[in-house]
Amino acid sequence: MQTVSVTLGARSYPIHIGVGLLGEARLYAPYVENKRVAVVTNEMVAPLYLARVQQALAEAGARSAPVLIEDGESAKGWKTLDRVIDALLKARLGRDALIVALGGGVVGDLAGFAAAVYQRGIPFIQAPTTLLAQVDSSVGGKTAINHARGKNLVGAFHQPLAVIADVSTLDSLPDRELRAGIAEVLKHAFILDLQFVVWLEANIDRLLARDRAALSHAVMRSCELKARIVAADERESGLRAILNFGHTFGHAIETGLGYGEWLHGEAVAAGMIMAAELSARAGTLRREDVVRVKQLIARAGLPAHGPKLAPERYLELMQVDKKAAGGKVRFVLLETLGHAVLRADVDPHLVLQSIVAAAQ
Amino acid sequence: MQTVSVTLGARSYPIHIGVGLLGEARLYAPYVENKRVAVVTNEMVAPLYLARVQQALAEAGARSAPVLIEDGESAKGWKTLDRVIDALLKARLGRDALIVALGGGVVGDLAGFAAAVYQRGIPFIQAPTTLLAQVDSSVGGKTAINHARGKNLVGAFHQPLAVIADVSTLDSLPDRELRAGIAEVLKHAFILDLQFVVWLEANIDRLLARDRAALSHAVMRSCELKARIVAADERESGLRAILNFGHTFGHAIETGLGYGEWLHGEAVAAGMIMAAELSARAGTLRREDVVRVKQLIARAGLPAHGPKLAPERYLELMQVDKKAAGGKVRFVLLETLGHAVLRADVDPHLVLQSIVAAAQ
Repeated sequence: MQTVSVTLGARSYPIHIGVGLLGEARLYAPYVENKRVAVVTNEMVAPLYLARVQQALAEAGARSAPVLIEDGESAKGWKTLDRVIDALLKARLGRDALIVALGGGVVGDLAGFAAAVYQRGIPFIQAPTTLLAQVDSSVGGKTAINHARGKNLVGAFHQPLAVIADVSTLDSLPDRELRAGIAEVLKHAFILDLQFVVWLEANIDRLLARDRAALSHAVMRSCELKARIVAADERESGLRAILNFGHTFGHAIETGLGYGEWLHGEAVAAGMIMAAELSARAGTLRREDVVRVKQLIARAGLPAHGPKLAPERYLELMQVDKKAAGGKVRFVLLETLGHAVLRADVDPHLVLQSIVAAAQ
Repeated sequence: MQTVSVTLGARSYPIHIGVGLLGEARLYAPYVENKRVAVVTNEMVAPLYLARVQQALAEAGARSAPVLIEDGESAKGWKTLDRVIDALLKARLGRDALIVALGGGVVGDLAGFAAAVYQRGIPFIQAPTTLLAQVDSSVGGKTAINHARGKNLVGAFHQPLAVIADVSTLDSLPDRELRAGIAEVLKHAFILDLQFVVWLEANIDRLLARDRAALSHAVMRSCELKARIVAADERESGLRAILNFGHTFGHAIETGLGYGEWLHGEAVAAGMIMAAELSARAGTLRREDVVRVKQLIARAGLPAHGPKLAPERYLELMQVDKKAAGGKVRFVLLETLGHAVLRADVDPHLVLQSIVAAAQ
């Protein structure tokens, strides 16, 4: 097991990464002894890991009850949130209760937001079971639900007490979801760490073959990189926005197609190609580095092209994207591989050109 | 104008109290220049004060748009929250936008919670227009909506940037609501300040006659007392819970009768009588002080008796009250007039007796 720390003063927490961690009582024990715990999970994950987690919680001295939600992005809305909160109330969980979010990004985002607002906030533990959640959504305290007008538009910053990333859960992950998770790994490398880009170019096939050592390294390095950014700018007043590389385009894709058509990581992959094209057009990134971005994304089996959506529709959708600051859309551009910058003054014509270029 | 400070480090803020403040641009100016502002208010308040507030915001350099909600406690739910958030999105307000909550406790709680979760949190200003909101709900950062299973069960701690308490708005307040506000003034005195109890015994008739000097003093002293508690225990890990004096019973009354039957302040008044009776029975408060509590509540024209609700139903309703810690209901008791304590070990029989005694 390896542990990465997210350093946030009194709200600092560990990310444990390793094989078989979900069943280890000692990882829960510091937080749950004598507490009531609700394990929020979904219909797909429950048969695989719920019993193991509840067993470990019992060994750690907690009384736990499961709260099941439906699978898929459609669960990330008011309706399911209300059902989770109702279940917590029905179980008479008080302010000193605790939530364990067991599942992928949807479960983590929704259960984390439920924890943020239940009785004005109770603590929670992230137990991510997808690569996407392990390398990205479970780390950093962003919780949210979707709104008909866009993704993650209602939410809170609510840091977990701990993240328990059990890489053995990745064995059961569908191929498509594994690749979607790799998209966020690539993102961390592209914006922050040239050496990690080089490592990924050498090891992408091992990741796709689910080599556990390679997966563990990718998860750990991603968490290290993200933790560093979160520690420096928890509430995204500046720097943290670079983690949205590819996401401004990606969210437009997801909203434009309707949630669930493309996986988040797939939309981000296509979005990163658009953002790389835009970086080249805005004069910050060399053409040969755009090619490296595209090649790595293609080798990961991720969409090399954007979906069939009118380029103007992208601009429209990006206007309501939550990263819009004072009406202006800010873009994350690459200056070099491994270094990103934030720009609010990008010419919309270049944006349109980049979308068209990425669709080919 | 007088100003009380809520001291919370980087989140400290002023409470301005005085006559005609809603129209003073200089009070908004430090926060809103060049910003987009949504003024959340209701159908009753808008005709009276909305134009004045929007004019002042314009003078302070902000572009503002109104968001109207329905009047009454029923607005404090998911449905209205979603409508407010939808209006903010439709107006394309970004993360740097700001909300002004113009109205009573319902508007402040709902708009404050909308601010807490809109795009993971935007700032807001409280502009309370009822006595209840000026002396209590606008101060301290508690925001929430109700749930079918109880009041304020979903919410967040989200401190405002400033509170602008214009006491001239109290001129238009219905008598019943004025008295409901006085209930929270009495509460602050009972739990924290014997001298203020004495002042209230001497000045209760001036408050009921809407003497502006008396009202200003009552608002200011209430805010000072509450601000001191909030500064010491923002998230209610201990001390702050004493502000719930009368509220454990009060919430049971409101939930038991259905929201809106009794005003919050009326329920709290009856709840304070029950809590005073309980304090006497638990051996902490002298009988003659119980009489002073009852007399002051009666002189304020507030319910001297609880509603017709089976005593056992109270116990049931209090179990889901959000102050329940680990399954136990904690009660705020008076030790003397002007000093409260928190107790989790109260005999349920004494609670039943106190409910019965207060119903007579």
